Amino acid sequence: MTDHIYWQDNILYLLDQRLLPFKRLYVKCRTLKDVAEAIKNMTIRGAPLIGIVAAYGVVLGIKEAIKSKGRVTEKDFNRISNTLIKTRPTAVNLSWALKRMQRAYLKFRDDPYLEGLMLKEAVSIHVEDIENNRMLSLFGAELIEDGDTILTHCNAGALAMGGYGTALGVIRAAHESGKKIKVIATETRPYLQGARLTAWELYQENIDVEVVPDNHVGILCYKGAIDKIIVGADRIALNGDTANKVGTYMLALCAHRHKIPFFVAAPISTFDRDIEDGSYIKIEERPGKEVKYIMGVPITHRDIKARYYSFDVTPHKYITNIITEKGIIKKPFKRYIHRLF
Amino acid sequence: MTDHIYWQDNILYLLDQRLLPFKRLYVKCRTLKDVAEAIKNMTIRGAPLIGIVAAYGVVLGIKEAIKSKGRVTEKDFNRISNTLIKTRPTAVNLSWALKRMQRAYLKFRDDPYLEGLMLKEAVSIHVEDIENNRMLSLFGAELIEDGDTILTHCNAGALAMGGYGTALGVIRAAHESGKKIKVIATETRPYLQGARLTAWELYQENIDVEVVPDNHVGILCYKGAIDKIIVGADRIALNGDTANKVGTYMLALCAHRHKIPFFVAAPISTFDRDIEDGSYIKIEERPGKEVKYIMGVPITHRDIKARYYSFDVTPHKYITNIITEKGIIKKPFKRYIHRLF
Repeated sequence: MTDHIYWQDNILYLLDQRLLPFKRLYVKCRTLKDVAEAIKNMTIRGAPLIGIVAAYGVVLGIKEAIKSKGRVTEKDFNRISNTLIKTRPTAVNLSWALKRMQRAYLKFRDDPYLEGLMLKEAVSIHVEDIENNRMLSLFGAELIEDGDTILTHCNAGALAMGGYGTALGVIRAAHESGKKIKVIATETRPYLQGARLTAWELYQENIDVEVVPDNHVGILCYKGAIDKIIVGADRIALNGDTANKVGTYMLALCAHRHKIPFFVAAPISTFDRDIEDGSYIKIEERPGKEVKYIMGVPITHRDIKARYYSFDVTPHKYITNIITEKGIIKKPFKRYIHRLF
Repeated sequence: MTDHIYWQDNILYLLDQRLLPFKRLYVKCRTLKDVAEAIKNMTIRGAPLIGIVAAYGVVLGIKEAIKSKGRVTEKDFNRISNTLIKTRPTAVNLSWALKRMQRAYLKFRDDPYLEGLMLKEAVSIHVEDIENNRMLSLFGAELIEDGDTILTHCNAGALAMGGYGTALGVIRAAHESGKKIKVIATETRPYLQGARLTAWELYQENIDVEVVPDNHVGILCYKGAIDKIIVGADRIALNGDTANKVGTYMLALCAHRHKIPFFVAAPISTFDRDIEDGSYIKIEERPGKEVKYIMGVPITHRDIKARYYSFDVTPHKYITNIITEKGIIKKPFKRYIHRLF
């Protein structure tokens, strides 16, 4: 499950995640514009993957600049970077990856092999993401007990990352270590990443999985059907407040009420060192019409309005631990998070 | 909006709520079996409406018995009643209506006009439901302030009742009294009663309405976008614990966390005098495949499992008031509820 993004002959191939698991079609990105569009229109999604794809997007932008005028000025680089940063506002991994590409650009700007060196940096970001996922999954798996039923939201799996996954990586690692685990995947409206991607990833690996509507978490907790909840993250503030797929906050409230451990699994690139708490996180609002159709089928009258926030913020109070590639962050989060950097 | 159920020439016409607002098709029930099937397969839904439809179902059952053997024994009546009670387990209005029809049967069993008298009783249940809705809506409207944004879940509107509605009745009455109100309707997976029915009812009456996915309640509360939450009920225990459409409990937890008033609006027939608290309420589990398709379109791989509970139980602690046709029930609920009967 690492063939959902690859680079070949100067083309970035992205498996179109809007069509899975029903169709396997690749979108070919030959230009910076293609990449920006693929991020914006949700061909790919998942905070770490957005960062990786943006890094490859920078490479394509640099290639275009070199082709048109033989060089890449700092102004060119900033234009490329700005085109990508504007695509989606919430996931911090996007700006993290762009900053890293900027450092590489500033280092190699006068090198005749600039293009190749920038590609190497993008590949490093990609490969390190997989490595980080594997590391954090090994740490996280220690929190999972044999026989656990684990609820997860959206898709924090291989498809959301370079590969392997964060929340699903932890589940995978626990499964690989021989623990018997059941997973409940919330369908995650409107894009159904839980039903389409998470359930599909786990099913292919023979991990027991069941899909439920997003509104089922309360009754499942009430019935004692959930042992742990684990989710990914799109941006984490220095106090541990976490932006993740819309609906996560409601899960955390249910977990808190029923004393169920609630874990966030994310690479360190997900921490935003510039913000003290979640109130500074910008929540993306997407067009309401994306809610009004499910797989192209209308669910309400065409003239009725709809609203769609992609993310919400879960206050750190409701999070038991944050699982990273450097280890498991305990409370008080603030103190432990500062030590990470 | 009261033409969604009517009786004509010994046929019960039910507007098929699974197709709204896209198609207006009536299911014609000519037999007891037709009625039982219409309740089971969700042609109609909504606790009070299920009770009303069941009452008409008894009339059809009695008609069949008289036609086949000229009379209706108590055994016949019990068979008819059992056929209907088995259709859906959670809404108490079903057994309430059947008990009322039983009392009528026992009173009129030897009357040559039994059939007509039973029809009269069913019509009374129907008409009284509308009256009760109007009464409770007048009481409830006093709790709504000019300028409020009110969130509601599922459909507790005219379509779920004999007419007018409970949760939506309160909103209607407040709107009719000149208060400016905005409504946010959760789509309510899997059957999308919020997106298809609630939004449609309000839109037709020019009440400002917006649809959101069920997972949006947390972020909306967090943003301060909700002033009140109001829902219907399928069964209320003597301590106020309330079974309602799955997802209600999560709404109540959000409301509690953000100090948002959370109202339940329901006729007194929704109270189950036989149970002290919500732990006795049987939660209907429907086939998982009803979750795996939205308007007939698959949302996950065909071999992946899914789970679907129709309802959940909201503990009385999280409910601010219960609005009934006799007035607004305050805390402590137990004492006030006992006084109702």
